[in-house]
Amino acid sequence: MFEFTTQLRVRYGETDQMGYVYYGNYAEFYEVARVEMLRTLGTSYKLMEESGVMMPVVELHCKYLKPALYDQIITIKVILDEMPRAGMRFKYMLYNEDNELINTGETLLVFVKMDTNKICFIPKELAAKLKPYFE
Amino acid sequence: MFEFTTQLRVRYGETDQMGYVYYGNYAEFYEVARVEMLRTLGTSYKLMEESGVMMPVVELHCKYLKPALYDQIITIKVILDEMPRAGMRFKYMLYNEDNELINTGETLLVFVKMDTNKICFIPKELAAKLKPYFE
Amino acid sequence: MFEFTTQLRVRYGETDQMGYVYYGNYAEFYEVARVEMLRTLGTSYKLMEESGVMMPVVELHCKYLKPALYDQIITIKVILDEMPRAGMRFKYMLYNEDNELINTGETLLVFVKMDTNKICFIPKELAAKLKPYFE
Amino acid sequence: MFEFTTQLRVRYGETDQMGYVYYGNYAEFYEVARVEMLRTLGTSYKLMEESGVMMPVVELHCKYLKPALYDQIITIKVILDEMPRAGMRFKYMLYNEDNELINTGETLLVFVKMDTNKICFIPKELAAKLKPYFE
Repeated sequence: MFEFTTQLRVRYGETDQMGYVYYGNYAEFYEVARVEMLRTLGTSYKLMEESGVMMPVVELHCKYLKPALYDQIITIKVILDEMPRAGMRFKYMLYNEDNELINTGETLLVFVKMDTNKICFIPKELAAKLKPYFE
Repeated sequence: MFEFTTQLRVRYGETDQMGYVYYGNYAEFYEVARVEMLRTLGTSYKLMEESGVMMPVVELHCKYLKPALYDQIITIKVILDEMPRAGMRFKYMLYNEDNELINTGETLLVFVKMDTNKICFIPKELAAKLKPYFE
Repeated sequence: MFEFTTQLRVRYGETDQMGYVYYGNYAEFYEVARVEMLRTLGTSYKLMEESGVMMPVVELHCKYLKPALYDQIITIKVILDEMPRAGMRFKYMLYNEDNELINTGETLLVFVKMDTNKICFIPKELAAKLKPYFE
Repeated sequence: MFEFTTQLRVRYGETDQMGYVYYGNYAEFYEVARVEMLRTLGTSYKLMEESGVMMPVVELHCKYLKPALYDQIITIKVILDEMPRAGMRFKYMLYNEDNELINTGETLLVFVKMDTNKICFIPKELAAKLKPYFE
């Protein structure tokens, strides 16, 4: 199991006229969190694309428990609870400044070789970096 | 059961560097589709908010089967397959110009009275407009 | 001079907590309008990219006179008042449903050959389509 | 004169299929920068709205000199070079990781009393915080 936590601040443009973060913007919050998680592992999504592997999202699930509000610092916990093979399932738990759980999410991403556009296994270096957490 | 179909064209700003529609933007596509569905029923989400009821999204689920691409006309079928009570569950099926199913989604929205900020039942007028489809 | 008019409806996700369309979203409205203008001429921005020429924006100017609001149909007039050469200057005038001018804008785009990444002149076919309007 | 510098990292969802940050997203970058500037002064835009004054943008100008790319850390310098009265003019200079100037911008915002929806002068506390920089 691998856990990682990061934070971001809600931008004005991310709210809607309800005064809440628009429900579609959580996908970008998740993206920020999983990208920072990869960086912590000593790699990056950018490097992965440069090496010819991209990771399109094939599933997204969100539960909105409480609204995220303008200017709040949102804490995002990302959890990998299985060793990725052809796909990588990230789970997210979002907390507001009062440490209330406001949102939970899940995304499934697959590895795709950019030259053939075919699904592939997790790149070896990434697998090597993750392995210690799943033994 | 109530079904409705609408179309939209993918904007450049909705793509990302993968050349696909960014996965977070489908939430807005779903929004466009359910809003147009309400309009077809002879009401509108805007009217509902003006009458003091808002509909925050509490759940979102998406499956990405094939990418949506820049400038494509996407056909969105919205399906209501149960009569809404305290919540309204919309299902979405998105098709590209070759009539391929590229994305399926589901959102659960609840009715909230804006003055008390409490969950409430479906407004009577909306219920009246939907009832014939569920008899 | 070439003038073209199109319409779009404001999405919920485009508003912010002020209840107005977020000021950054007008850029996408302008994009929709100029893309539809090109289509009217019998070409498309997509075709242009496929032929190896892209059009990055190098300048953007907006004046916000009145807010655009959720669910409003916005009418966008696009004006080309000079024959494009190495760049293409679009002017925009946005009107709300009461026919009030709510926003004016201007963008300067340049033609860039995608293989060399160098600025180039307007592609011949586009020039041919535009010429009649500037004689 | 008051100068302030902040940084942000480009998100995947902010790029478009050209591989650049979409031109409309710079407006949100500017927003992040001016909001952080206000925070440095010991106030915040959120507090200002809570005290009944909002700041809609009335003008936006951007020049795009070089593209901002995915995952880059962008440094944003915000400059106030005149003491605000009824409006507040922010200037922006954006730099990439090679310290190249990639974008310059300007926004004019006005102060609006939210109860009357009328333009007003700069709130006294904000004026007091800014005054030392313009003497």
